[in-house]
Amino acid sequence: MHHAIGFIQDLAVIMAIAGIMTIVFQRLRQPLVLGYIVAGVVIGPYTPPFALVHDQNTISTLAELGVVFLLFSLGLEFSLRKLFRVGMTALVVALAEIVLMLWLGFEIGRFFGWKAMDALFLGAMLAISSTTIIVKALDELGMKRERFAQLVFGILIVEDVLAIAMIALLSGVASSGSVDSYDVAVTLCRLVLFMTVSLVVGISLVPRLLHYVAGFGSNEVLLITVLGLCFGFCLIVVKLDYSIALGAFLIGAIIAESRHVQAIERLIEPVRDLFSAIFFVAIGLMLDPRVLAQHTMPILVISLAVIVGKIVSCGLGTFLAGNDARTSMRVGMGLSQIGEFSFIIASLGMSLKVTSHFLYPIAVAVSALTTFSTPYLIRGADPLTRRLACTIPPSVARAAGFYTQWVQGLSAVGEKAPLRDMVRRVVKQIAINLALVAAIFIGGAYFSPTLEAWIAPWVPSARARSALLWGGALLLSMPFLVAVYRKLKSLSLLLAEIGVQPALAGRFTSGLRRAIAEVVAGAAMLGVFVLVVALSGRILPPVDLLIAVLAGAAVLLGATWRWWIRIHARWQIALRETLEQGGDDR
Amino acid sequence: MHHAIGFIQDLAVIMAIAGIMTIVFQRLRQPLVLGYIVAGVVIGPYTPPFALVHDQNTISTLAELGVVFLLFSLGLEFSLRKLFRVGMTALVVALAEIVLMLWLGFEIGRFFGWKAMDALFLGAMLAISSTTIIVKALDELGMKRERFAQLVFGILIVEDVLAIAMIALLSGVASSGSVDSYDVAVTLCRLVLFMTVSLVVGISLVPRLLHYVAGFGSNEVLLITVLGLCFGFCLIVVKLDYSIALGAFLIGAIIAESRHVQAIERLIEPVRDLFSAIFFVAIGLMLDPRVLAQHTMPILVISLAVIVGKIVSCGLGTFLAGNDARTSMRVGMGLSQIGEFSFIIASLGMSLKVTSHFLYPIAVAVSALTTFSTPYLIRGADPLTRRLACTIPPSVARAAGFYTQWVQGLSAVGEKAPLRDMVRRVVKQIAINLALVAAIFIGGAYFSPTLEAWIAPWVPSARARSALLWGGALLLSMPFLVAVYRKLKSLSLLLAEIGVQPALAGRFTSGLRRAIAEVVAGAAMLGVFVLVVALSGRILPPVDLLIAVLAGAAVLLGATWRWWIRIHARWQIALRETLEQGGDDR
Repeated sequence: MHHAIGFIQDLAVIMAIAGIMTIVFQRLRQPLVLGYIVAGVVIGPYTPPFALVHDQNTISTLAELGVVFLLFSLGLEFSLRKLFRVGMTALVVALAEIVLMLWLGFEIGRFFGWKAMDALFLGAMLAISSTTIIVKALDELGMKRERFAQLVFGILIVEDVLAIAMIALLSGVASSGSVDSYDVAVTLCRLVLFMTVSLVVGISLVPRLLHYVAGFGSNEVLLITVLGLCFGFCLIVVKLDYSIALGAFLIGAIIAESRHVQAIERLIEPVRDLFSAIFFVAIGLMLDPRVLAQHTMPILVISLAVIVGKIVSCGLGTFLAGNDARTSMRVGMGLSQIGEFSFIIASLGMSLKVTSHFLYPIAVAVSALTTFSTPYLIRGADPLTRRLACTIPPSVARAAGFYTQWVQGLSAVGEKAPLRDMVRRVVKQIAINLALVAAIFIGGAYFSPTLEAWIAPWVPSARARSALLWGGALLLSMPFLVAVYRKLKSLSLLLAEIGVQPALAGRFTSGLRRAIAEVVAGAAMLGVFVLVVALSGRILPPVDLLIAVLAGAAVLLGATWRWWIRIHARWQIALRETLEQGGDDR
Repeated sequence: MHHAIGFIQDLAVIMAIAGIMTIVFQRLRQPLVLGYIVAGVVIGPYTPPFALVHDQNTISTLAELGVVFLLFSLGLEFSLRKLFRVGMTALVVALAEIVLMLWLGFEIGRFFGWKAMDALFLGAMLAISSTTIIVKALDELGMKRERFAQLVFGILIVEDVLAIAMIALLSGVASSGSVDSYDVAVTLCRLVLFMTVSLVVGISLVPRLLHYVAGFGSNEVLLITVLGLCFGFCLIVVKLDYSIALGAFLIGAIIAESRHVQAIERLIEPVRDLFSAIFFVAIGLMLDPRVLAQHTMPILVISLAVIVGKIVSCGLGTFLAGNDARTSMRVGMGLSQIGEFSFIIASLGMSLKVTSHFLYPIAVAVSALTTFSTPYLIRGADPLTRRLACTIPPSVARAAGFYTQWVQGLSAVGEKAPLRDMVRRVVKQIAINLALVAAIFIGGAYFSPTLEAWIAPWVPSARARSALLWGGALLLSMPFLVAVYRKLKSLSLLLAEIGVQPALAGRFTSGLRRAIAEVVAGAAMLGVFVLVVALSGRILPPVDLLIAVLAGAAVLLGATWRWWIRIHARWQIALRETLEQGGDDR
């Protein structure tokens, strides 16, 4: 019982000071996050009275759990449906913001004479705005339901996904030491593939399990199951060399499709609040005021860059996507700060030992300053827009108005809109099914040593083993391949109907259309086959056996065609039900 | 980020297996606690596949937090008011149970040839029933609202308090190595004093603070404040050399008087479930099936002793306190298991290094067996009572019925009941005020080195310093001393009114009564003075200065008498309001 007393004392000091600070900062109407960081500075080793924390290692372990729970509940609030709705605008704005801020941060770092890796991490830190701060600020200002707020949330969702990708990329860059565009492309493809497969498989299974568990009516069982899923998935993700942050976010997004997501959020909230408080206090613990004093200039310059850079990039992006000047200004002002993601990226750099020690305190200081300014900026957006409207020449203002109307006109529903939607949906389905096929073959190649060792006693020939493995993978991916073929056929039929007009083809119209459809679909399937062969790597059998396996598969396919279709249809219906039920409940 | 991966992997394995086990055990309708322990055994180092946990130290640190949160939420469910209601019966039953089981456990230990300390800890482990198990079992059987269940909860509350005292005593006994009745008495007195002062001071301050904090309307602020209070108080308690379990329970009981206790319970529940799951899994981790196989005999004997011993002691105690045979049997059957407290006491023995390594697994095995049997016993209580009623001779049954009626008649409201209630209330108020006075002087003596060091530069004479300190303590305790004097006077006036009847004293009646009251109150205050002098220890000034300080106090008192009364009255009203508002809300 007594070996733990030191740690519990530390925790007690942290919670006691954090408790006082929450009350003070709530009273001052400032974000709690700032209060936690100040509490950390007070307790920390760099300020009087003295170091109140003895076992900083255990504390930073718990702080790590804070990252897990912060990203997990971010995932819980993530919604695939919402993302599809604001999709395009949000993507444009988020990309504009990230690219500009990455470049700006990198240039500032070089300007102050920092080494390249520091400058790169600085850019990454400035790229992502803080969901926590924005949600709290809009909540306190009573603006959560306004149109620009919906847009801001959409942008934040896209940013979160891109940030997760950025964390994966930075880890790769940091360990290889250089930016190789081929590596980046491979990393991104693997990441997108992994995320797609996780989401599809997860959403097929997890919400059903949670619905069963929720039926017991016990909060404890539900909570422990959710935590088991969360940590279990994180374990798999870490084994695959991705960051635990990615795992927590993905499993959160999967659980978000359960119809019990609100009950789960209520249960997770206190746990998240506890560990995120420890996370932010731990950030304060690492903050040395003397380092801040030494870097006053960079801190001020970077803070200004964050505010101006985000207002310009996000505001302009929003305007270019077809919103009026007032909305654009408000979106820009709302996103003009950095927060928890910057800390996560900063601590990534520290733990990979590629960044200098001053980067972390600078990130915290810039976050504190910009967090502080956010509510004032949001409130100041409208007056500033009016002021600007008075100063710019009337001709420019008129041109801007025309532009907005023109873009809005572009996305209006035209004659061909339903057709476009249909094509888009079919393409999406093909992509998802192809991702699953790819995942099966890549997974087979990845696990082939283990699998080969298992079947070696029965199948002594290495040639036969690889044929067996490849055949097994083909069998597993059969329902998805059949689905891909059928979707491809209906897609090319659709295209053939547009392309082959009865006025030209006369009585051959329908025959020609069908022939084109068959040829296009067949050619595409050949492409799929090449892709599969490229992906299957070391389990690809020699040509003679490959042909044998393919022949066997063809015979099997011919005999059981309808059965595969039925299996796939059942799975697809179940998936759609989950997605729709999740939506009913909110 | 990476140094924590090992720990997070451990946690992930624990949560994943625990998640599976909760589902399985909920499905089998068995208590989740058993599921967690089984999960621990599966993960643990003694069973195949292999040790899945690498950093057992960090896990047991987190398990320690499980104890804090288990006892904290036990405290939150504790209610002073409920305790006063079932007070007497519950006290009789709990005392009968604890004494019998302590003795029985000790004798069993000696019978198996264990050393004295093992036998003593075994006794302590068997003494306390498991609140968690009972509440769950009654909940699942749908019996939570029945009369015997209310009685069981009352007994559990008294048991919890006595268990806390037992933990404090066992720590003392284990470190001194022997049971000294004087030491025990001093330890108990200090403990009761500490608990009283904490409760009175805490209930005066904490609910007001929480009401203020709840006004912000933020769950996060409320949670972090509550956790800050909980851990901050635990820190003080540990500094005073009490166990952290006592601190968590006491601060829980204090917060239970807040009118926001239900919101707080909702917020604390997930955190408690998380850490208590880790606590029970950690117990399973320590469980070596081979040790269990070696000690099958003791495990079976002790399990039988727990079931029979508790049914007899609790059943008989309930019956002797004036309940019918059916209720008594149900109470006895309900309490016939051991649980979380036994684990806490077992781990206390291990961490103090006074018990053998086999004691812990035995406690876990006995708890598992008796937990398993509890629901069957509760359901079997009524049939067993009927069976017994048929077999015992009618004369015995009739005598038992008469006894029940007689005891119930005793406690019926008589003519003098209001008077008795009034006397009881006044005595309670005097005791509380005296406890506060005693705490001020003991605290003054305890902190005197620090305080003297502070005032030394201004007051060079050691004599003058002690006079100053003692005078300060006297000033602080003035409102409580004035209150004690006034309560004593009204109490003795009450007693004088009963003692001096007008028939005997004639026209002197009222004068005589007042004179007696003054004399008795004065004599009692002299006793209080002696007590204060005895308690003030090293800050007691020499006689001449003592007289001077007392004279000064007397002058001050004469001049400001009414003011002190007003201060005390205001405090008392605030305290009563808190207690009553807390009640309104439930």
